[in-house]
Amino acid sequence: MTIGIDDLPIRDELRGKSPYGAPQLDVPVRLNTNENPYPLPEPLVERIAERVREAARGLNRYPDRDAVELRTELAAYLTRTTGYEVGAANVWAANGSNEVLQQLLQTFAGPGRLAIGFEPSYSMHGLISRGTGTGWISGPRHEDFTIDVAAAAAAIAEHRPDVVFITSPNNPTGTAVDAETVLALYEAAQAAKPSLVVVDEAYVEFSHRPSLLPLIEGRPHLVVSRTMSKAFGAAGLRLGYLAAHPAVVDAVQLVRLPYHLSAVTQATALAALEHTDTLLGYVEQLKTERDRLVTELRALGYEVTDSDANFVQFGRFDGEGGAHAVWREILDRGVLVRDNGVPGRLRVTAGTPEENDAFLDAVRALKKEQSS
Amino acid sequence: MTIGIDDLPIRDELRGKSPYGAPQLDVPVRLNTNENPYPLPEPLVERIAERVREAARGLNRYPDRDAVELRTELAAYLTRTTGYEVGAANVWAANGSNEVLQQLLQTFAGPGRLAIGFEPSYSMHGLISRGTGTGWISGPRHEDFTIDVAAAAAAIAEHRPDVVFITSPNNPTGTAVDAETVLALYEAAQAAKPSLVVVDEAYVEFSHRPSLLPLIEGRPHLVVSRTMSKAFGAAGLRLGYLAAHPAVVDAVQLVRLPYHLSAVTQATALAALEHTDTLLGYVEQLKTERDRLVTELRALGYEVTDSDANFVQFGRFDGEGGAHAVWREILDRGVLVRDNGVPGRLRVTAGTPEENDAFLDAVRALKKEQSS
Repeated sequence: MTIGIDDLPIRDELRGKSPYGAPQLDVPVRLNTNENPYPLPEPLVERIAERVREAARGLNRYPDRDAVELRTELAAYLTRTTGYEVGAANVWAANGSNEVLQQLLQTFAGPGRLAIGFEPSYSMHGLISRGTGTGWISGPRHEDFTIDVAAAAAAIAEHRPDVVFITSPNNPTGTAVDAETVLALYEAAQAAKPSLVVVDEAYVEFSHRPSLLPLIEGRPHLVVSRTMSKAFGAAGLRLGYLAAHPAVVDAVQLVRLPYHLSAVTQATALAALEHTDTLLGYVEQLKTERDRLVTELRALGYEVTDSDANFVQFGRFDGEGGAHAVWREILDRGVLVRDNGVPGRLRVTAGTPEENDAFLDAVRALKKEQSS
Repeated sequence: MTIGIDDLPIRDELRGKSPYGAPQLDVPVRLNTNENPYPLPEPLVERIAERVREAARGLNRYPDRDAVELRTELAAYLTRTTGYEVGAANVWAANGSNEVLQQLLQTFAGPGRLAIGFEPSYSMHGLISRGTGTGWISGPRHEDFTIDVAAAAAAIAEHRPDVVFITSPNNPTGTAVDAETVLALYEAAQAAKPSLVVVDEAYVEFSHRPSLLPLIEGRPHLVVSRTMSKAFGAAGLRLGYLAAHPAVVDAVQLVRLPYHLSAVTQATALAALEHTDTLLGYVEQLKTERDRLVTELRALGYEVTDSDANFVQFGRFDGEGGAHAVWREILDRGVLVRDNGVPGRLRVTAGTPEENDAFLDAVRALKKEQSS
């Protein structure tokens, strides 16, 4: 007899589920997971090797449990790029923003509590909520994927969630959220509960708009989460962080696994932060390419959602097989994009100019075929 | 007004709690967290720098989500050192065994479910249980810190826990568990529920007894957890792993955060695994030193628990101030040991011969003072 997952005494709600994650396919052009297409510059690679070598000499010891040097440098980066001054006491770091969000949910939500997000949005918000025993409410959006403030505030008043997720720019739609919307939902959340409002800014460096970080001033229940995966071109590093009132940083330490952040991760992140200017230069290139994708896709007649991120949502594909059939046809042309399950839409990551040309060639060929 | 943790809408059960972790004090001789005192050898440091440099060149991409190469090498290590053959499908890895245990609890325990451990034991078992919403049962031990099989089986029958923790060698006592005990508790757990039995072998490489790993044969609800923190001298790396039936490995992937294990962690662990023989040589030296600590402490008249780990529990300190007063007196002599809260006992990690001498000098001086 072969024993499978469902023969084990796992939790009932996990039965029949599949692990989350985009298909990892070996395809010439991969524009499906919003990775930064630019490898780290060689001087940074050398600096990482150097800092990790140094860290490896003390690897028999536990890492700095509080990651003070790293949090200090992340705070300096935030201060420099947003103009709003934060220090190490405002910043917390973990293995990817997923772990940051998990720690926030363990602290402020969990069994018997609720979280809300406005969908479609980053699907891990709901998955990590469920993984921490938190109930999940799928809140509404306008048809153009902006947040419907009145409807969102009404949902908050109705459900009284303990955690409210706002993603700006939103994934997978690319939609930025303005400060007025965040403030309105923060007020609604405080009136309802009070609850923690988490602004997920994973893609904010690619935005036309400034960061929402300064909104934490005087708002101890507002948290901004960030990542080095995208703008820093370091998805492989798994370094996420948050900025908030120091009390929030103290609170997540009640649930964090001790020594959660390895010495090699801290060393690598510190090296990358030394090369911020170079890496932000790549961000500028990617913004230009992102805008080109929007323009070209619109010129081809696609419906394209305004994007403030390093990816573009396009459609609509309402014919037979829907968006998934088109996803497959683009894949057959050697380009992997993402079907996030948004009806009639696909998402393409802005790659290098060459990768974006390959993608645009693929969709042009598709258009031609359809019209012939 | 200063805002503190308790002004935030955190979970009620977190109120008034402090973050877990040993005091990180700057002391000449630190024998408090069971770290390996031997820094990694320089050729391994160089190999880590080399492998991380290579990984850094692809750091803009997400890491191998399933860590297949690393799991293959960990399986080869287990096969070679235990004589029981396992493959990558039997092995799962995460950021420290703490994360491995957290994933197991999220999958097999969590809200509305129970876990049991036999205390005193590794206190993170209870803490991670609570952190995942799992109820915690503190099971009994004999006065000599071995597991009272009859009482333990009775506790399992009474509480019907979903997860049973057995730590061998046990932390902080150093006590190894024999196969018969594990089998008896496994049977009790299957009769009661069935539940998952987790054998935590973090310190097994230091044991006089063989690993309990071969017991997973034909027992799909038995899991052995391991770490590279101790025997591999890599506490700073945060690499824990488990071996079990492949269905268990599939099951934890339902709750793992996607891409939880960074490319630099994977590269560093793979480098360390290349140097296994050298690192296991240090283990032999530490076993000799551990045995010397036991002998010398007994010669000084202390009550010492038999140890199969890289640390030694000694006492008894039942006078005024108890063990904590003695902990402080040893600290005043420049040596940091651990007060794990076991009444009348302290725990000292086996360090280098020089560190152990410093510790023994400190307790000798203490003895002399007391008898004068």
